[in-house]
Amino acid sequence: MADGVRRVRLIGVGPGDPDQVTLEAVRAMREAAFFVVADKSPRGGMPDPMADARERLLARHLDAPPVIVRVQDPQRERGPDRTASPDAYAAVVASWHAARAEAFEQALLDHDGDAGFLVWGDPAFYDSTIRVVEQVRARGNVPFEMDVVPGVSSIQLLAARHAMVLHDVGEPLHVTTGRRLREAVEAGQRNIVVMLNREIDVAGLEDWHIWWGANLGTPHEELVSGRVGDVLDRIRQARERARESAGWVMDVYLVREARRGLLR
Amino acid sequence: MADGVRRVRLIGVGPGDPDQVTLEAVRAMREAAFFVVADKSPRGGMPDPMADARERLLARHLDAPPVIVRVQDPQRERGPDRTASPDAYAAVVASWHAARAEAFEQALLDHDGDAGFLVWGDPAFYDSTIRVVEQVRARGNVPFEMDVVPGVSSIQLLAARHAMVLHDVGEPLHVTTGRRLREAVEAGQRNIVVMLNREIDVAGLEDWHIWWGANLGTPHEELVSGRVGDVLDRIRQARERARESAGWVMDVYLVREARRGLLR
Repeated sequence: MADGVRRVRLIGVGPGDPDQVTLEAVRAMREAAFFVVADKSPRGGMPDPMADARERLLARHLDAPPVIVRVQDPQRERGPDRTASPDAYAAVVASWHAARAEAFEQALLDHDGDAGFLVWGDPAFYDSTIRVVEQVRARGNVPFEMDVVPGVSSIQLLAARHAMVLHDVGEPLHVTTGRRLREAVEAGQRNIVVMLNREIDVAGLEDWHIWWGANLGTPHEELVSGRVGDVLDRIRQARERARESAGWVMDVYLVREARRGLLR
Repeated sequence: MADGVRRVRLIGVGPGDPDQVTLEAVRAMREAAFFVVADKSPRGGMPDPMADARERLLARHLDAPPVIVRVQDPQRERGPDRTASPDAYAAVVASWHAARAEAFEQALLDHDGDAGFLVWGDPAFYDSTIRVVEQVRARGNVPFEMDVVPGVSSIQLLAARHAMVLHDVGEPLHVTTGRRLREAVEAGQRNIVVMLNREIDVAGLEDWHIWWGANLGTPHEELVSGRVGDVLDRIRQARERARESAGWVMDVYLVREARRGLLR
């Protein structure tokens, strides 16, 4: 291991476009001795769908081919439903995090120098890398300093593509997951960004407005906006188009209740 | 005016650190023929407190001195309170936006080529530049295409500095203003990012946890975290320190209800 305390750097690399990366992130990538990459090959042994994007990113910013340490991602059990059984769900997530922490620790024990973890979007939104690296530290077997380099999130690129502010003047913004959209609406939220969608379920919101995007920042980007009831079919078609052309789909959207005369 | 339709580019330039800017934003800055800058000199004719930061940013990224078109910011009336009189407040904001749109339009009429608007943080969060430029377009006197370049927001840098995810696993994130924090707590929100604070008013949340930062990304950055009741005095002192050393203070914080056994 290198002398002194080495760094583990969690680098937010934006939604997908290699130019939507900060100068700080580029420097961090160049300073990393190696990159730890969780190999996500679930669902029938398909290759990691983001591997191409990652290679394009590193090729764009590094002068020499990077050292990539692949870590087999522990299979995440598709066990209990979060809503039906929150405690059991929490236990599954905790055990999955622990398995990942163990694998990350081994990668750090096997390699010298600063480690880089590339995080799509921003490490602060709906990503577990920070939590898992914290667990590695808590295990106490390998010393390091962790630092986090923020990146542009897909939420922000969604807003930029639609040339919009994410909320009405002075109003709140509520960010949640597809699974919890209904809960947010029932609690009175009227301006909601929805991440991590297995499907687009906006039943009952037909009169709201939606701004939607998939595979943002990539060559397979799709964008649709309009009244939910009018554009939902187009969104579903665009979503399938993205999935077919890229081999994967990641989407995000904002839904807002239509109101009269309010500032936009 | 240049041939073809020129671009008006709203460039998110991050919270303050000139290296926390994307490559896309750097390119957009280099391509702009001139920058429109709203001269914020309220409160007794003080110079624009962000002017130094803006100059550092442009000097870092441009080869030649930029053309800067200063637009006198219309005085925003400190009139009706938003909560007490939402309609009157909306009218004040609308008239302020309209005055700004008129000033921006004149700047576009007086100068040729692509215009750049530098937006601190990200144009999608609590910034009115997009709305005002939309108004310029709606006035119809000067043709242009608007595009938005996303940037890292202070929310994200706050999270990075505290090496944390902004929400518990799978839980929502609620973003609001200091003025509306209480409303969010009363509506049951338990994980709240608070922007635009005139003061830190967290009475009643003494047992919650807070992660706070001021003047993030600048040489006068301040960070404090802990149980609200334990650290509030330190936050207030750090806030005054930032204001005194920088001449201005912009802060943001996350408050989260302390809970037992939940995933972090």
